[in-house]
Amino acid sequence: MHYKDLGFAKVDLDRTKRRGFPEVIYCEGKTVAQIEKISQELLRKKEPLLLTRVKKETFLKLKKIFPKIKYSAKANLASLQLGKPLSVKRGIVLLVTAGTADIPVAEEAKATLELMGNKINTLYDVGVAGVHRLLDNKKVLRSASVIIVVAGMEGALASLVSGLVSSPVIAVPTSCGYGASFSGLAALLTMLNSCSPGVAVVNIDNGFGAGYMASLINR
Amino acid sequence: MHYKDLGFAKVDLDRTKRRGFPEVIYCEGKTVAQIEKISQELLRKKEPLLLTRVKKETFLKLKKIFPKIKYSAKANLASLQLGKPLSVKRGIVLLVTAGTADIPVAEEAKATLELMGNKINTLYDVGVAGVHRLLDNKKVLRSASVIIVVAGMEGALASLVSGLVSSPVIAVPTSCGYGASFSGLAALLTMLNSCSPGVAVVNIDNGFGAGYMASLINR
Amino acid sequence: MHYKDLGFAKVDLDRTKRRGFPEVIYCEGKTVAQIEKISQELLRKKEPLLLTRVKKETFLKLKKIFPKIKYSAKANLASLQLGKPLSVKRGIVLLVTAGTADIPVAEEAKATLELMGNKINTLYDVGVAGVHRLLDNKKVLRSASVIIVVAGMEGALASLVSGLVSSPVIAVPTSCGYGASFSGLAALLTMLNSCSPGVAVVNIDNGFGAGYMASLINR
Amino acid sequence: MHYKDLGFAKVDLDRTKRRGFPEVIYCEGKTVAQIEKISQELLRKKEPLLLTRVKKETFLKLKKIFPKIKYSAKANLASLQLGKPLSVKRGIVLLVTAGTADIPVAEEAKATLELMGNKINTLYDVGVAGVHRLLDNKKVLRSASVIIVVAGMEGALASLVSGLVSSPVIAVPTSCGYGASFSGLAALLTMLNSCSPGVAVVNIDNGFGAGYMASLINR
Amino acid sequence: MHYKDLGFAKVDLDRTKRRGFPEVIYCEGKTVAQIEKISQELLRKKEPLLLTRVKKETFLKLKKIFPKIKYSAKANLASLQLGKPLSVKRGIVLLVTAGTADIPVAEEAKATLELMGNKINTLYDVGVAGVHRLLDNKKVLRSASVIIVVAGMEGALASLVSGLVSSPVIAVPTSCGYGASFSGLAALLTMLNSCSPGVAVVNIDNGFGAGYMASLINR
Amino acid sequence: MHYKDLGFAKVDLDRTKRRGFPEVIYCEGKTVAQIEKISQELLRKKEPLLLTRVKKETFLKLKKIFPKIKYSAKANLASLQLGKPLSVKRGIVLLVTAGTADIPVAEEAKATLELMGNKINTLYDVGVAGVHRLLDNKKVLRSASVIIVVAGMEGALASLVSGLVSSPVIAVPTSCGYGASFSGLAALLTMLNSCSPGVAVVNIDNGFGAGYMASLINR
Amino acid sequence: MHYKDLGFAKVDLDRTKRRGFPEVIYCEGKTVAQIEKISQELLRKKEPLLLTRVKKETFLKLKKIFPKIKYSAKANLASLQLGKPLSVKRGIVLLVTAGTADIPVAEEAKATLELMGNKINTLYDVGVAGVHRLLDNKKVLRSASVIIVVAGMEGALASLVSGLVSSPVIAVPTSCGYGASFSGLAALLTMLNSCSPGVAVVNIDNGFGAGYMASLINR
Amino acid sequence: MHYKDLGFAKVDLDRTKRRGFPEVIYCEGKTVAQIEKISQELLRKKEPLLLTRVKKETFLKLKKIFPKIKYSAKANLASLQLGKPLSVKRGIVLLVTAGTADIPVAEEAKATLELMGNKINTLYDVGVAGVHRLLDNKKVLRSASVIIVVAGMEGALASLVSGLVSSPVIAVPTSCGYGASFSGLAALLTMLNSCSPGVAVVNIDNGFGAGYMASLINR
Repeated sequence: MHYKDLGFAKVDLDRTKRRGFPEVIYCEGKTVAQIEKISQELLRKKEPLLLTRVKKETFLKLKKIFPKIKYSAKANLASLQLGKPLSVKRGIVLLVTAGTADIPVAEEAKATLELMGNKINTLYDVGVAGVHRLLDNKKVLRSASVIIVVAGMEGALASLVSGLVSSPVIAVPTSCGYGASFSGLAALLTMLNSCSPGVAVVNIDNGFGAGYMASLINR
Repeated sequence: MHYKDLGFAKVDLDRTKRRGFPEVIYCEGKTVAQIEKISQELLRKKEPLLLTRVKKETFLKLKKIFPKIKYSAKANLASLQLGKPLSVKRGIVLLVTAGTADIPVAEEAKATLELMGNKINTLYDVGVAGVHRLLDNKKVLRSASVIIVVAGMEGALASLVSGLVSSPVIAVPTSCGYGASFSGLAALLTMLNSCSPGVAVVNIDNGFGAGYMASLINR
Repeated sequence: MHYKDLGFAKVDLDRTKRRGFPEVIYCEGKTVAQIEKISQELLRKKEPLLLTRVKKETFLKLKKIFPKIKYSAKANLASLQLGKPLSVKRGIVLLVTAGTADIPVAEEAKATLELMGNKINTLYDVGVAGVHRLLDNKKVLRSASVIIVVAGMEGALASLVSGLVSSPVIAVPTSCGYGASFSGLAALLTMLNSCSPGVAVVNIDNGFGAGYMASLINR
Repeated sequence: MHYKDLGFAKVDLDRTKRRGFPEVIYCEGKTVAQIEKISQELLRKKEPLLLTRVKKETFLKLKKIFPKIKYSAKANLASLQLGKPLSVKRGIVLLVTAGTADIPVAEEAKATLELMGNKINTLYDVGVAGVHRLLDNKKVLRSASVIIVVAGMEGALASLVSGLVSSPVIAVPTSCGYGASFSGLAALLTMLNSCSPGVAVVNIDNGFGAGYMASLINR
Repeated sequence: MHYKDLGFAKVDLDRTKRRGFPEVIYCEGKTVAQIEKISQELLRKKEPLLLTRVKKETFLKLKKIFPKIKYSAKANLASLQLGKPLSVKRGIVLLVTAGTADIPVAEEAKATLELMGNKINTLYDVGVAGVHRLLDNKKVLRSASVIIVVAGMEGALASLVSGLVSSPVIAVPTSCGYGASFSGLAALLTMLNSCSPGVAVVNIDNGFGAGYMASLINR
Repeated sequence: MHYKDLGFAKVDLDRTKRRGFPEVIYCEGKTVAQIEKISQELLRKKEPLLLTRVKKETFLKLKKIFPKIKYSAKANLASLQLGKPLSVKRGIVLLVTAGTADIPVAEEAKATLELMGNKINTLYDVGVAGVHRLLDNKKVLRSASVIIVVAGMEGALASLVSGLVSSPVIAVPTSCGYGASFSGLAALLTMLNSCSPGVAVVNIDNGFGAGYMASLINR
Repeated sequence: MHYKDLGFAKVDLDRTKRRGFPEVIYCEGKTVAQIEKISQELLRKKEPLLLTRVKKETFLKLKKIFPKIKYSAKANLASLQLGKPLSVKRGIVLLVTAGTADIPVAEEAKATLELMGNKINTLYDVGVAGVHRLLDNKKVLRSASVIIVVAGMEGALASLVSGLVSSPVIAVPTSCGYGASFSGLAALLTMLNSCSPGVAVVNIDNGFGAGYMASLINR
Repeated sequence: MHYKDLGFAKVDLDRTKRRGFPEVIYCEGKTVAQIEKISQELLRKKEPLLLTRVKKETFLKLKKIFPKIKYSAKANLASLQLGKPLSVKRGIVLLVTAGTADIPVAEEAKATLELMGNKINTLYDVGVAGVHRLLDNKKVLRSASVIIVVAGMEGALASLVSGLVSSPVIAVPTSCGYGASFSGLAALLTMLNSCSPGVAVVNIDNGFGAGYMASLINR
């Protein structure tokens, strides 16, 4: 059987073969005991462990069980790599944010990309309110194989970046903002309606998904 | 008169006759004193007592008043059966969840089904990200008279299950997810738009309603 | 009395005194006979006549009644100036559009601005998909006293323009686009969430309102 | 280079030249350390410092670092002016609120306007439930160069004020209200649909943006 | 039996006794044959006939069947009164519209009120863009027992009227407007959030419902 | 002058003359000091004092200032009547709720109605899940001059009640419910779409507004 | 292989075995040629043919190709049964509509149920505006094994019916209504929030889906 | 200058250099004369011409001007390649649709991909209602470098496909469906909430954007 049935979870042990990367544990709504049991199944197979949406108190409990587990507080991600790291991919994935407040989501993408064996570059706080900050970095933009643009509020940066490059752009709307940003809806709609082709969108605040997608592209 | 007027509530004492099951007490927005009084009217009639959306602190207070009352913390349900249990129904109701985080809602359905005299089976964590976990269980799926599918995020599981079986599927969207899941709206719309006929939908997180509906079907 | 009561309409004859410009006739939902009667009251006072949302067939009928009336088919606006023109204002109002399809809304603003005595400049089709088209025109942008930015789809242009200038920007979302543009909602939200201060927004496709507002600012 | 790259932020040092006012620090989602470093770059250039959405505890920490920093608790704004104040502008900006609960948003606008060198007047609690309170103040309304109308609930005040004056009106919807106000959406839509031209709208609760826009107009 | 079963309809013959007015025929989605049959049941009982949402071509067909039927094209209402008219009620119902384009909805209310035996007065086109048109008519406003306010776009008029009088106000949002009026949603939300108590709201464009409600109040 | 200007508030001292009842103080977003000052202006005029949305801790502070002030914890309303009570009105206002959890909103209406001099009757917990509880009380329903129906979840009760009586029905949607109730939106839409005429709707959870409207009707 | 690949379609020839009923052809967005080819594959297997959302002109073309095909104009359904009919099921499925305008959706369900071998009963136009029409038919309601309730506008009927019976209720919201019915959204939300358990919901206007679901239940 | 200014349009002549593909002409909202002039600028540079959202009558007019222009009626795309074709890319882009009605959107992607030099494969009508049609084609799925999944209604197919492969998936929601599909919103939300990582989404019905993005990935 290609999965392990724990009753509350059916751990997908076939995923690396099928998809090139093992099951990732989304921790929201799971107890520490549940996370532990799923982790142990994956570790038994020497799979690299990636846990998303991990609260600090959850991590501290997991740390006692898995002393080698690492944590990025900025990204709410935990990871543990017992086997050998994934072979490094050719291209560079560039992480771009509109503002400083969008960085945690970018960091979630970054941690995902690193574990999946990607080379990474960052360009933070280059939102459209001062577009020279972006335009002065055209060379950095054009050296990337894939670009992830992370932006809240009006989310205009993804279209702008896309218009400057020939690489695909993954756009991540964030819930930064207030009022009519409607928790990221405004940025999401902006990115979906990009007048510049070459942009595709993932869920609001989904740094992990953007990193995963970029890694699949960067092969 | 077929109801008891308590001023703040008119306890429906005719419901078992009319509907086959007594009034169920929805506890959100009711004080412990109000719950107690309604419960006593129902117990006086030897009705099985089912209380939904019961917080732990409310249960602990009710426990002092009704020492035999039982509680499912996972499902936020309390129950008390003084009379003889309902006669057991013929078919099996199968509870299916997409993920581990959807289990509490499934458990609410399960507790409801048990009290209403149904045989139950479960198949948890068989979401579409690893569809072999579902397909390996076709036999389990096809042995059920009614299937309840509980899923958050994109809620795609209901259509998929329905396409594999000839029994009716009750779909329960859950509020699991973030961003553009809009607290269960995405899963709700998915389920309502099922391209596979034989699916009907209840409210977001409404495990009780799904269990009740399945029990009415499973006669 | 400061208005003329026609039964179906109370023509506001005090408006020029109060607001600096007479009542403008919004023609949607009005019959030709109603438009005619309101127009005659305004013309009697030697007020410049401005009619918005005028369909071509309506205009042709009005033309027979008011032979000197002018029409802009692009902007769906009709106008008639019997008295002397309004004195010309000092600054220049610049009309900027993201795409070619946004021009009709810009033209509605332009016709309004002209009738209100403004000097006008235009910069059309400078959307963010090719940002050099905008940046090559910084001088034009900076020579304006007020800028109106008209954009559909993702509506990102308003923030970008605002970030380059020290004049106020009036943003007009348009209903150009499809799918998740939701008839202009996406552009509207983008503009309301501008990360660049100095932007204020009018209703979707409301070229007239943008022109009127810009004229009030350009005094 | 026209910006200072701090990694997590690229401080826009060209903004005063380009836009007439330096970068303003939006504090939501930034750490105190991040705010401190951005502030120091701006102070080094003798720029007036304006920080929006500053929580009290953040301010108290900043106070230890920048002892001369000032705070408006009502407006959640902090500011620090080391260089000479901006030259005072000619016209008066009038701040109008519908209710008492809208005052904090008006105060955010007011603090912004003061730092940008504007003369200010206020007219608070003149909502449409008792319209004589507004009409008795026509003289105050007409003495202003620009008017900011701040209103929650149904947000009707902006149209009404606009209908009485010849100056441009910046409308700020607030999240005051409950139920079908949907956190300011009702007031936002009201203001966007104003039947009285001469109104433009900023984001819900965006007192800063309204003040900034009004200051650009009031030159 | 208190109703007549026609298969496709169960005509409620008890309604005058129960509610003071017979069943009203909502014609959208009904064939002429269906309307005819329902009408005949009501006429047999000498009930006054009121038909809403009647298209002109439907009316012309009905006219051949019921030669005495009357039609208001403005209101899309048809009526036929074979028995004696309802006794006239004491108070006056005042119909107020914000604009000329709102009149058809007001006329639907007016025709309903007339058939139900009410005295009526009208005050059309007194929207907030020129508030003196309303304030000059305070006497008319205060002479009414009930006021119906019909307004599209921002719908601000209902709150304003309510603030001037001691009679109850029924507010009818209309679908007049464009863009962010979202087919009457903006006006609906405005009216529901009225800061002035004494306002209750009916469905968008529901002139009939407003008239019916006002007539129940005006007894 | 017909109002007292306190700077943060302009107390409307003309309201009793104009509207038959003094200004009511909406306490959300106001400080205790602000509430105190407004109250003192009204008490100076011997007006009955009604305060809505009063939290318990606010009330306790007000109690020290105004020892005779009364509080309904269920309704979050405070009141103080120094002058003679309003003369009692002829008809009875009936308060109907669908469930027990809707009672607090009904109590807000009740307290408002009492202070305004109305006779009141109540019929609580008669929701459509057991319709005989409602139908057994037809006599109570038909003895009322005005009926207020308070219901959350699907809000179906308003239409049903309206179909049984000839008095006007004020419908109050409540935020009781979960999931697709969207905090009262479902009940609000239900009530606006009532197939039974004679229903008008106030804002979600707006018991005060319903009571005020009913009192205006019940003259 | 269990399907026939036609390029533009993969006809599911396994469906009767898997689900008890063959593939149903949803005709919206398909050309007549496409419908013809899919139909021929199914007919070759002697499957009963069911086509939904068939416009009249499409049917007339199909009629020339398949002379024995039948059409229900009311339901927009076509069907053709070459093999022997499905064996008749035990229970009765009752179709209930709130109004006359809801009948076409009920007829879509009815035609589906008939082809699937069900006994059917109907109860049309028993909406809550005259609840005695429903209550007089309790016997009919209680004789059904499954009930389909079809209702537009406020959709309150499903809860009411459910409260009277012990059989499961499938609720179908319809797009009948206007304004705040938002094309069936109001009825949909009402039905999802039913306070009476035993209701599950299908998509707006989805008579076919309701019939299919009811048939699965009625075994 | 890197663009040609035509007044109504600024043709971006730098785009091939910057982005690898020339400007694409979005035809909605443009006149034939405008399309002609933009096309001539691009043809002058020997760029391949791609026109999206071209109505048949527009194409017929363009055909007279550019006799070699080609048209895909299914995809509403026109194209003209005067220069040499783009060099063919290595990998295969697979186009997958859930149903037959989704094919036009897939064809828009296909035409775009062809012009951009990609090898293409298709797998149409493999929606989740009969999942074996998809699973029987695992080999086809796994031979692709990039997969475009086009689906309306509940849009569940994208997650399912993604779970089976290691290549990136571009998801395109379509407006196929009715009722609660809300013109593609349901499918859009489903795709954004995919529980299977490796999915990114473009606008509803945006086949062109999906093709363009896939081509950028497939280098």
